[in-house]
Amino acid sequence: MDGMIGGSGDREAMLQVARELRGEIRAGRWLDRTTGMARGMVQGNLVVLPSEYAADFQKFCERNPKPCPLIGMTKPGDPGVPVLGDDIDLRTDLSCYRVFENGTATGEVSDISRYWRDDMVGFVLGCSYSFEEALMQDGLIIRHLEKGTKAYVYLTNVPTEPSGPFSGPTIVSMRPFTPPDAIRAIEITSRFPDVHGAPIHFGDPSMIGIEDIANPYSGQPPEIRPGEVPVFWACGVTPQIVLEEAKVPFAITHKPGHMLVTDRLNAEFSTT
Amino acid sequence: MDGMIGGSGDREAMLQVARELRGEIRAGRWLDRTTGMARGMVQGNLVVLPSEYAADFQKFCERNPKPCPLIGMTKPGDPGVPVLGDDIDLRTDLSCYRVFENGTATGEVSDISRYWRDDMVGFVLGCSYSFEEALMQDGLIIRHLEKGTKAYVYLTNVPTEPSGPFSGPTIVSMRPFTPPDAIRAIEITSRFPDVHGAPIHFGDPSMIGIEDIANPYSGQPPEIRPGEVPVFWACGVTPQIVLEEAKVPFAITHKPGHMLVTDRLNAEFSTT
Repeated sequence: MDGMIGGSGDREAMLQVARELRGEIRAGRWLDRTTGMARGMVQGNLVVLPSEYAADFQKFCERNPKPCPLIGMTKPGDPGVPVLGDDIDLRTDLSCYRVFENGTATGEVSDISRYWRDDMVGFVLGCSYSFEEALMQDGLIIRHLEKGTKAYVYLTNVPTEPSGPFSGPTIVSMRPFTPPDAIRAIEITSRFPDVHGAPIHFGDPSMIGIEDIANPYSGQPPEIRPGEVPVFWACGVTPQIVLEEAKVPFAITHKPGHMLVTDRLNAEFSTT
Repeated sequence: MDGMIGGSGDREAMLQVARELRGEIRAGRWLDRTTGMARGMVQGNLVVLPSEYAADFQKFCERNPKPCPLIGMTKPGDPGVPVLGDDIDLRTDLSCYRVFENGTATGEVSDISRYWRDDMVGFVLGCSYSFEEALMQDGLIIRHLEKGTKAYVYLTNVPTEPSGPFSGPTIVSMRPFTPPDAIRAIEITSRFPDVHGAPIHFGDPSMIGIEDIANPYSGQPPEIRPGEVPVFWACGVTPQIVLEEAKVPFAITHKPGHMLVTDRLNAEFSTT
């Protein structure tokens, strides 16, 4: 199933690809990652929580829009997110989910129908795939994609603003650029506030508590070439860590890379 | 004559202040700089050239929009720029002009009526005052304004794209910021493409040919505090130098700081 470059392709064709992919996932025929698929379409991170935690988590997202850009939320017990696609069913439409009990991952499944309860609330958060596509369309090279590895992810000492049981440090992803490319990347990502927006830092990693840039929290050691500076964006791993730390009795998330493919175009998420 | 903060004030009141100031200048009663006056209103750099050079200079501006953002241009012999204000007369509406003969400044005058000819073409270029106001409204502190000095201006090795006799290096102004403030400043100024737009560089000055950051081309030695990086914007001094280098037989510019005060709001020049 081949994706198309967003914005340059035909809207209906891109939408068709997204719906077909979601259909394959729903039918249990696609169990792999969605990275790089259904190009041009917004993919989202998922968090599912019992409704008693929903108000606090929603507030946490609102207070920390850069790491937790909330782009969709369900009613309690309702697995639909019509704002992201008419037929979306959060119980079946991701290719792999992680189940958490008291903050510990206890399983990975490709369907959460049997875990779904009538007090479940689903949160869909914007993800960096959308802005990475915009950066690439502008001709910028994203190092970890160029090298075919996962994103370079770091723990910082920048606190999130807490809400109820939810708190913790901001997690960032790093992309190295020359200063002119970094400026262009800041310009572009600032137009995507719903998918992490502009970076939170560039340059000296120790200013945000990163002691060793060669040693990421996750991902390979990065290659930063002469004349390049590391640029740091708030990352969707932040809510995952926050959720684990909060040790809520029960929660479900997507497995990293296995995202919700929506019916919304990345281009629709640009503010200009 | 007291200005108002753009955007927060009443449009009509701000316009009134601009028109009154322009009236005082036209009448020869205000001969001083316009820096910080008629707040909220766009001020512009001026270049006046014989029409035989106009096409090349217009193309030079179009090819180099960051240092030379063209916001208004007259017809040959017509001193009006209705797009910037119904009653503007470029012969009388600036408080100080510089006259150039063969690339050398030969005089400063407060009225160029006696120099104006029916083959004269006026160019008005956007200036950094507009984006500095937007930065300050966002709470950012601009060091040279905080210290009450002129902008820190540097010669770079970044070439402009030539057009006819017009060519030369890009001149930049530098403002030091912490990385998060620099990111914010990039976000904000990228929304003002008609007043220099986003910076062209940050960090290591030698990457753009600046050997000694402590020794600007003009302005005092800057204070760059620990944790700050220098951020460099293309500067309106660029066309002045280019004009001098081109050694056109006759040209007139504004005197730095003595700008054309227009009827356009800075807010109108924001793309979002």
